[in-house]
Amino acid sequence: MMNPTQKVRKILSYYESDNPGTKTNIARILMAGKLGGTGRMVILPVDQGFEHGPIASFAPNPEAYDPHYHYKLAIDAGLSAYAAPLGMLEAGADTFAGAIPLILKVNSSNLLLNKNLAPDQSITASVKDALRLGCAAVGFTIYPGSDHSLHMMEEIKEMSAEAKSYGLVTVIWSYARGGMVSKDGETAHDVIAYAAHIAALLGAHIIKVKPSIDAIELDNAKKAFEKNPVSIKELKDRIAHIVKTTFNGRRLMVFSGGATKSTEDVYNEVRAIRDGGGNGSIIGRNTFQRPRPEALKLLSDIIEIYKGRL
Amino acid sequence: MMNPTQKVRKILSYYESDNPGTKTNIARILMAGKLGGTGRMVILPVDQGFEHGPIASFAPNPEAYDPHYHYKLAIDAGLSAYAAPLGMLEAGADTFAGAIPLILKVNSSNLLLNKNLAPDQSITASVKDALRLGCAAVGFTIYPGSDHSLHMMEEIKEMSAEAKSYGLVTVIWSYARGGMVSKDGETAHDVIAYAAHIAALLGAHIIKVKPSIDAIELDNAKKAFEKNPVSIKELKDRIAHIVKTTFNGRRLMVFSGGATKSTEDVYNEVRAIRDGGGNGSIIGRNTFQRPRPEALKLLSDIIEIYKGRL
Amino acid sequence: MMNPTQKVRKILSYYESDNPGTKTNIARILMAGKLGGTGRMVILPVDQGFEHGPIASFAPNPEAYDPHYHYKLAIDAGLSAYAAPLGMLEAGADTFAGAIPLILKVNSSNLLLNKNLAPDQSITASVKDALRLGCAAVGFTIYPGSDHSLHMMEEIKEMSAEAKSYGLVTVIWSYARGGMVSKDGETAHDVIAYAAHIAALLGAHIIKVKPSIDAIELDNAKKAFEKNPVSIKELKDRIAHIVKTTFNGRRLMVFSGGATKSTEDVYNEVRAIRDGGGNGSIIGRNTFQRPRPEALKLLSDIIEIYKGRL
Amino acid sequence: MMNPTQKVRKILSYYESDNPGTKTNIARILMAGKLGGTGRMVILPVDQGFEHGPIASFAPNPEAYDPHYHYKLAIDAGLSAYAAPLGMLEAGADTFAGAIPLILKVNSSNLLLNKNLAPDQSITASVKDALRLGCAAVGFTIYPGSDHSLHMMEEIKEMSAEAKSYGLVTVIWSYARGGMVSKDGETAHDVIAYAAHIAALLGAHIIKVKPSIDAIELDNAKKAFEKNPVSIKELKDRIAHIVKTTFNGRRLMVFSGGATKSTEDVYNEVRAIRDGGGNGSIIGRNTFQRPRPEALKLLSDIIEIYKGRL
Amino acid sequence: MMNPTQKVRKILSYYESDNPGTKTNIARILMAGKLGGTGRMVILPVDQGFEHGPIASFAPNPEAYDPHYHYKLAIDAGLSAYAAPLGMLEAGADTFAGAIPLILKVNSSNLLLNKNLAPDQSITASVKDALRLGCAAVGFTIYPGSDHSLHMMEEIKEMSAEAKSYGLVTVIWSYARGGMVSKDGETAHDVIAYAAHIAALLGAHIIKVKPSIDAIELDNAKKAFEKNPVSIKELKDRIAHIVKTTFNGRRLMVFSGGATKSTEDVYNEVRAIRDGGGNGSIIGRNTFQRPRPEALKLLSDIIEIYKGRL
Repeated sequence: MMNPTQKVRKILSYYESDNPGTKTNIARILMAGKLGGTGRMVILPVDQGFEHGPIASFAPNPEAYDPHYHYKLAIDAGLSAYAAPLGMLEAGADTFAGAIPLILKVNSSNLLLNKNLAPDQSITASVKDALRLGCAAVGFTIYPGSDHSLHMMEEIKEMSAEAKSYGLVTVIWSYARGGMVSKDGETAHDVIAYAAHIAALLGAHIIKVKPSIDAIELDNAKKAFEKNPVSIKELKDRIAHIVKTTFNGRRLMVFSGGATKSTEDVYNEVRAIRDGGGNGSIIGRNTFQRPRPEALKLLSDIIEIYKGRL
Repeated sequence: MMNPTQKVRKILSYYESDNPGTKTNIARILMAGKLGGTGRMVILPVDQGFEHGPIASFAPNPEAYDPHYHYKLAIDAGLSAYAAPLGMLEAGADTFAGAIPLILKVNSSNLLLNKNLAPDQSITASVKDALRLGCAAVGFTIYPGSDHSLHMMEEIKEMSAEAKSYGLVTVIWSYARGGMVSKDGETAHDVIAYAAHIAALLGAHIIKVKPSIDAIELDNAKKAFEKNPVSIKELKDRIAHIVKTTFNGRRLMVFSGGATKSTEDVYNEVRAIRDGGGNGSIIGRNTFQRPRPEALKLLSDIIEIYKGRL
Repeated sequence: MMNPTQKVRKILSYYESDNPGTKTNIARILMAGKLGGTGRMVILPVDQGFEHGPIASFAPNPEAYDPHYHYKLAIDAGLSAYAAPLGMLEAGADTFAGAIPLILKVNSSNLLLNKNLAPDQSITASVKDALRLGCAAVGFTIYPGSDHSLHMMEEIKEMSAEAKSYGLVTVIWSYARGGMVSKDGETAHDVIAYAAHIAALLGAHIIKVKPSIDAIELDNAKKAFEKNPVSIKELKDRIAHIVKTTFNGRRLMVFSGGATKSTEDVYNEVRAIRDGGGNGSIIGRNTFQRPRPEALKLLSDIIEIYKGRL
Repeated sequence: MMNPTQKVRKILSYYESDNPGTKTNIARILMAGKLGGTGRMVILPVDQGFEHGPIASFAPNPEAYDPHYHYKLAIDAGLSAYAAPLGMLEAGADTFAGAIPLILKVNSSNLLLNKNLAPDQSITASVKDALRLGCAAVGFTIYPGSDHSLHMMEEIKEMSAEAKSYGLVTVIWSYARGGMVSKDGETAHDVIAYAAHIAALLGAHIIKVKPSIDAIELDNAKKAFEKNPVSIKELKDRIAHIVKTTFNGRRLMVFSGGATKSTEDVYNEVRAIRDGGGNGSIIGRNTFQRPRPEALKLLSDIIEIYKGRL
Repeated sequence: MMNPTQKVRKILSYYESDNPGTKTNIARILMAGKLGGTGRMVILPVDQGFEHGPIASFAPNPEAYDPHYHYKLAIDAGLSAYAAPLGMLEAGADTFAGAIPLILKVNSSNLLLNKNLAPDQSITASVKDALRLGCAAVGFTIYPGSDHSLHMMEEIKEMSAEAKSYGLVTVIWSYARGGMVSKDGETAHDVIAYAAHIAALLGAHIIKVKPSIDAIELDNAKKAFEKNPVSIKELKDRIAHIVKTTFNGRRLMVFSGGATKSTEDVYNEVRAIRDGGGNGSIIGRNTFQRPRPEALKLLSDIIEIYKGRL
């Protein structure tokens, strides 16, 4: 491990209540890979096999059926961390031990479930699993708005407390779904801000949301914005506002890539995240569904963008 | 810490079953700030970000997106305590360690939830969290009347017992909702008295309710009042009666400010609380949604009112 | 403590499986107050504030808003025990330590709940609370017939086992409600006998039911009575039969006073309990809703009736 | 305790995974009473007060309201064991300590419950209770087919594992109810066999079912019997087939008496159980609802039948 | 135990996160019986009595009512392991101790349940049971798609973690049912692949699914296959693809026999499993419902097929 840069030490200082173990693991992620030390991150998440099924996820690039493929991709691309469910990490835990910070995704959902049920996930791994696999962090999805959301928050509260007690980092994927949130409203700016804020209040160290769109869903946010206008036309402004509404930048904010899109669209989104002061990207399908050389190129370019060179 | 005044020692004597640790923490709150030693309190609660979302809560005063803002406001205003959810406290726990008594709000709800579901909250922090953050108290919301209320009472019963065993104070926010309580009836005088009484029976040290209105909701209370009339026309009389119905003044009663209102309305409400013998105010939106100088002025005036000087 | 009388020693002998600690606490109750040693008891229960609200309960006699009032009333009247929820006991636990045996009521319901839900209670105190407050017993309500009744029985089974392990006494309030029981049938003779029998089978030391009326609710009891007639016209006969059907007198049976009624009605009910071989009365609203002198007179008379002098 | 006979030692050898403590308690039951050593058992169960109410159960023979009555009946009749819920056993635990093997019935249902709910029982005693009362076994009812059945199986699985770890015996009452089972089908031959088989798979040492009738309920059993016919016309053949389908005789099978019937009917049923190779009878209402002399005569005759003398 | 072959050592190397105890038990299974050392397995599962009832399961071959029958069959046929619920294993645990690796099936369902309820199972044995019975593995069924599936996954996650901590192997039976899966779709190729993949992600060492059919159920898999065609016409190709989609062959995949079918059909299915690179068969009804000599012949032939000789 390298000595944390001043930038990273500044970020660590925001985590006022954490023990040295957790700060060390935050530093491990922030000092890893090609963006090490910059305060930016690119994380490879591979929970698509659970969420969407193996064929939908990996048929476009069959090499990706092999758990080793993703470890190698993340390492060779110089990423900050690799996040996956239990089995995926177990299948390469020894071969790639120590090669890249790992995030154990501890809950998961799947597409076989009746889609009329309130969104929920199953806890499929434990904090102890994260420890025995040498992970730096646990990752947990919540669905604010879902009829199951209060229970999901209680689950992550307990796992997060346990993780922190062992010096691990907590990453929360926060996606508003159901309840008072319309389908279109899931990425409305105020809803994304609300979801990120809840994750921060739950004690997350790293928060992952989707980039918001130029729309406001909830009446109380509309009223607040009418009286106190904020520009959210441009994505970079929305990113900057999300960062501000989430403890004024005191928490690491990363944004997801979402469904596969054109390379240029990816680049523009990353530029907006960078310019808005976001801490980085979690980018899965857009990488592992491409042939490896293309994925490496894409990731290299994204890193360059975060470095301000592209 | 200062030596408790005679007034405070009198209040401590009401807590007949508590250990010296809990009495010490009650004293810490009652001796803190500008009202220290008077038996009155003003507490800053900042759980609005969770309950209403960050934009609705903080857009009117964007400095308030920063967790440090609220610590500073409460300290600079000379308040008795600062109450907030886990993440908000964690984000300033080190910078402001020891500067003001902290109340960890251990459960929370949010506006994304389907509003047709019975009101409920998620437990988002633990007694152990309160201890590691150096808090003096845990705060818990119950919704008497809600279909989830029996379960919520069991939750606070367990957390309160654990808190007391470690010398912490238990604060209960008691809001009747659902069940036999109509929307208008939520602040009816008998319903507020009932909610406060339940909190006292559950073992709360400090009870927070809304000021009641001049109305009676339940038939059995109407009958009791017909035979045994009590004047509840004036707010100060209602406050006095709530204090009486809640163990005859043997528990600390604080009242909330509710939605933002005019400064004069706030002052009149505080005067009524003071004259009715209430122990103080919990006032959030009316302070942190104003510019800091105005908020400091408002809080200073409220303190002066409680001191009988305004 | 006085040496148990022969009468009390006989009663203690019925508790064949209990440890000396529990027998000691049964003896504490049976040897306390003016009926000490007679095998009869009068217990003051003050859970009305929880069950019906403070105003409906205490407005008729506002001194009763003060938790100390009830301790003093029970002590000054020479009663056998005082039963109340957590907060009520905590508020006088030190002042009145050792002055009268205490029963901690560990579950409670309230009138704010939707009355169309199956009857249920919330567990609002623990066995450990009873120990730290110096109580002799824990008290628990079950609603046989309610859709929640199987769960309530499991709760008291666990708390009772814990209480017995610490030498505490278990008191069960058994009120049939819901299920196959009609509103009128709640006090039918067979239903009361069934409710008392279930409490005995659950391991209660002291069982509290309402006096039954001259009616039979369930078909199988009707058939059994047709073939094997028993006189249940007079209340004293019904009391005697309840005592018989509840382990043939091997468990302490006390009866509630119910809603406020005339003094003469109270006396006649107590005479019937006495003549039927019941062990005493639990009498709340009929005492604390009267002015203190009247309540003391009433309780004194009841005690005289149990002593056979009135 | 007598040295186990060869017959009993043979039976003990079927319990291949049990520790010597459990084998000792199986032997205690099989060596007790007048059938001691024969491999046959007659057990007195008195859970009728819980299941049907005290009046329906004991009004026909009022002496039976006294818990001591049943202990004495079982002991004087020379039975193999006495089974009852917690309170019933506690009320005679000291007087009759060591006089007869006891089975603590650890779950119970009652007739006050809404009969439209899926059948369920409440756990009303624990394995620890069985130990402190000196019992040889715990008894548990399951309702295969009920919507609660999967949960009930999990409950007995846990209690059975705990019981075995302390050397206690597990007795399962298995009654199919609800689900795909029609009211008439509850005693169909295949359903009884299925219920008994499930109890065996759950690890029961002693299984109690009702005698089956000459009917097949489930389609898959009908098809299997069409291709592989078995004679189930006579009760003794059905008993023999149940014994065979339940691990080929490797588990102790006892059969219930059911509702009160004529003495001759009881005798014929017992003869069929004997001739079919069943291990005995659990017989409650048919004994304790008769006058004691008649009950003793009946039990004596049943024992003679099992001894092959009647 | 024999020294693991190179083939087996290669397979063991895929389990990168497991302790030597678990690897030893994987090796015990892979080195047992006539296929020992080949990386192929044939397992006898006898949970039919629970799942379908004893008559439907064993009437075709009544010797099979005896638990010893199955132990002997598996041992005499030279199989790799024998899997059964608690009672079945207990009934022969001593007689056959050490003779064949055992898999304790720790959850079970049954046909008496209302078939309109979402599919679920009851946990009927524990990891501790597996240890005390000398088992090499625990087996667990999940129903991805069922409304209970998220909970079932949490159950196996916990039991699997406990099993691994004691050096046991986890086997998951994964059958998609309910939710978005149509009745016909349960064996669609993409659904089988998804079910197997979920089992792998949950950390299973050995995964058991049904052979898939030439059909695709889910829209996202259809789209993925349209763009990236894979041949799934032949069963052996489908097997090969399932093996690939399940961690690219890094997990042991075995396939079930399903309902009784002709011997030739069984052989062809086994040949396809072999040629597709599957690790073996779990075959129950097709063996124990035949007369023992026929079953032994069938199993011998299957083993020969896996050895490439038939």
